[in-house]
Amino acid sequence: MTDAVSLIQRKRDGGTLADAEIRWLFTAYAANEVADEQMSALLMAIFFQGLDQQELRTWTAAMIDSGDRLDLSQVTRPTVDKHSTGGVGDKVSLILAPLVAACGAAVPQLSGRGLGHTGGTLDKLDAIPGFTSSLSPEQTIAVMRQAGAVIAAAGSGLAPADRRLYALRDVTGTVESIPLIASSIMSKKIAEGTESLVLDVKVGTGAFMKSYDQAKQLAQTMVTLGREHGVRTAALLTRMDQPLGNAVGNAVEVEESVQALQGHGPEDLMRVTYALAEQMLSLAGIRGEDPREKIASGQAYEAYRTMIRAQGGDPDAPLPKAPHTKVVTAATTGWLANLDALKVGVAAWRLGAGRARKEDPVSAAAGVMCLAKPGDRLEKGQPVLELRADDERRFAGAEQALGTAIVIQADQPPPPPDPVIERIEG
Amino acid sequence: MTDAVSLIQRKRDGGTLADAEIRWLFTAYAANEVADEQMSALLMAIFFQGLDQQELRTWTAAMIDSGDRLDLSQVTRPTVDKHSTGGVGDKVSLILAPLVAACGAAVPQLSGRGLGHTGGTLDKLDAIPGFTSSLSPEQTIAVMRQAGAVIAAAGSGLAPADRRLYALRDVTGTVESIPLIASSIMSKKIAEGTESLVLDVKVGTGAFMKSYDQAKQLAQTMVTLGREHGVRTAALLTRMDQPLGNAVGNAVEVEESVQALQGHGPEDLMRVTYALAEQMLSLAGIRGEDPREKIASGQAYEAYRTMIRAQGGDPDAPLPKAPHTKVVTAATTGWLANLDALKVGVAAWRLGAGRARKEDPVSAAAGVMCLAKPGDRLEKGQPVLELRADDERRFAGAEQALGTAIVIQADQPPPPPDPVIERIEG
Repeated sequence: MTDAVSLIQRKRDGGTLADAEIRWLFTAYAANEVADEQMSALLMAIFFQGLDQQELRTWTAAMIDSGDRLDLSQVTRPTVDKHSTGGVGDKVSLILAPLVAACGAAVPQLSGRGLGHTGGTLDKLDAIPGFTSSLSPEQTIAVMRQAGAVIAAAGSGLAPADRRLYALRDVTGTVESIPLIASSIMSKKIAEGTESLVLDVKVGTGAFMKSYDQAKQLAQTMVTLGREHGVRTAALLTRMDQPLGNAVGNAVEVEESVQALQGHGPEDLMRVTYALAEQMLSLAGIRGEDPREKIASGQAYEAYRTMIRAQGGDPDAPLPKAPHTKVVTAATTGWLANLDALKVGVAAWRLGAGRARKEDPVSAAAGVMCLAKPGDRLEKGQPVLELRADDERRFAGAEQALGTAIVIQADQPPPPPDPVIERIEG
Repeated sequence: MTDAVSLIQRKRDGGTLADAEIRWLFTAYAANEVADEQMSALLMAIFFQGLDQQELRTWTAAMIDSGDRLDLSQVTRPTVDKHSTGGVGDKVSLILAPLVAACGAAVPQLSGRGLGHTGGTLDKLDAIPGFTSSLSPEQTIAVMRQAGAVIAAAGSGLAPADRRLYALRDVTGTVESIPLIASSIMSKKIAEGTESLVLDVKVGTGAFMKSYDQAKQLAQTMVTLGREHGVRTAALLTRMDQPLGNAVGNAVEVEESVQALQGHGPEDLMRVTYALAEQMLSLAGIRGEDPREKIASGQAYEAYRTMIRAQGGDPDAPLPKAPHTKVVTAATTGWLANLDALKVGVAAWRLGAGRARKEDPVSAAAGVMCLAKPGDRLEKGQPVLELRADDERRFAGAEQALGTAIVIQADQPPPPPDPVIERIEG
């Protein structure tokens, strides 16, 4: 008979779990015959010993099979989604989903909420009056058929085992494991029913993956998992050492996304967005459509407005504005060499844009505006950041979090980095 | 503020826990503010990353301080105890405690019950009609004052944190960790209040520690922990590749112990017993007493009878006898080269002498008698083992467990091993 202790010991000692054992584990865990303390010990053993490709494939399949798989057969366009591992100022989904829809694909973007210093796409969209991300599977498909794109909350029916495991990992120090991260992301995306998927794996101080090697390993693991489960999958490694674009927060990121859809997006944001769009169109088999043209013609912005309206939002309603602002200025004259993504992200979080616990509310208006980007020339005393908050008592904590975020060098401008590092295809 | 997740992550990543953090952890765990799933993840991280000497010292102190420390100040003789890491046929405590008492020491032996293939001292003594191991602290001290030795169950007031942690480790695959084993054993022994302690760390197929290196590391860790907590501690590494003595079970081991106390003990059993006795007397500062003389004169047996009576038992009552016996014979003629301790232990367990779960009852009468020892000459068909059971349906499983336990070689007798490998002093 299979028992939990034997499986934990085997994995702990570097052995391999058979397919039937992994299936048994998930069934028994769902039936509470395997206890949380046993699962957390196994997760820690996996942190140290990993899962091989076959184990990971079965582990992911068991998570998918713990719930429903969305049936997108009613959607006639090719379906393609994007998932980002999360970064500071990462509002790409808000621009990309309608942009790729305007090119002829259907984008079933099911997202989560933010936790910690990286914001969540749904928290950003919630700043739009009337917008709802809580859609039934039928509503999700209906919005996609109408607007070509939908950005909604992943329902509780998709990969419920992942939901329970993620909550356990969060409190047991077992989040940072490449196979566990890969299976968590991919089980939800595969259950979502998309035909194609592009992963934006972020690398750098503000990203979950701090090193190139880790990020590349995660990307390759997820691309393989996608292919094994019949989803055409590719990944881009992109830089997350500084905030993406200028706005960090919720309403401020919606505003920047709208400006981007109107043709006025910051260069780094647009480079990442176009690179992801081209990869998505390529996987979806859509040829001859130019994303830049869809922005210039206003078609992408029109798709955005249709999507927001289809989800109950008013794209013309004014967004919440923070009553309090505070400017952070340059301490010396020189070139802005770095603007640390993690520190800016934590500052925005402390201003109210993010949540410490998943029950916490977020402030729609709070955030940080970057008034300069690395490479810019600064005079001493020139504004670099504008902090925004509902409550001015939050400024002290945010400034403390910023610390040495602003790095100015006297001698020469830093070389401009390309935000797109590498493309990984299956 | 200290939080469990940060401590788990730090240990996971090879960092060190501060004294105050370890103290916080045990307090919060006792208050259920740290959950079992967090503790089990930490235990698995400790399995991989270990605890350094300072961490282990504080971890052990926190377990001791979770309960009471027995006050043996009313006992006027020097106190000295022995702890064995457990082996097959290991009835040494039954002989050693009264023997060392007869030499002038007081032996406060607080023991546990058996689990798995190694028997528990209390299970063996429970075969004696009337005997009780459930004594209050006051009764424990009274027996020791009267008989010079007591063998009783460690009360729930001693190191309760260890009790809870051990139950958690048992179901989460985190038993086999040297710092966790060392702190578990030593917290109970230090809380027991003994001035001196000799550890019998068994090495071999039938022992918990399979390799010399592991056993030596465990012994050194425990000797250091004892010294750090003011207990004079030494350890002997002893062999556990074959059963110790001839009897494996409960009543059969009591019988063999009585024979040993009457001067008729098997050689391997007596060598280990005398080596431990000499080490105990040395630590207790008792000079000029010869354990062999205390056996020969009958004083050790008299101390045993006094102890059994003081704990309600009748040393003259007949012991339970198994209604069914089955003999296992030599398959070929030759020298008995090995009698595998683990296989014999598992066979005895399956015959009913041990328990699979801690709630299970054990059979007093079941067990295995070794009719030959390694080094003996055997004729084909000669009896080697006698299996004893309350229910003859148990023989099949026991014989299956024995498998290749009996190894006979044709050419020459095996070299006689010295059961005492090494002495480790602080």
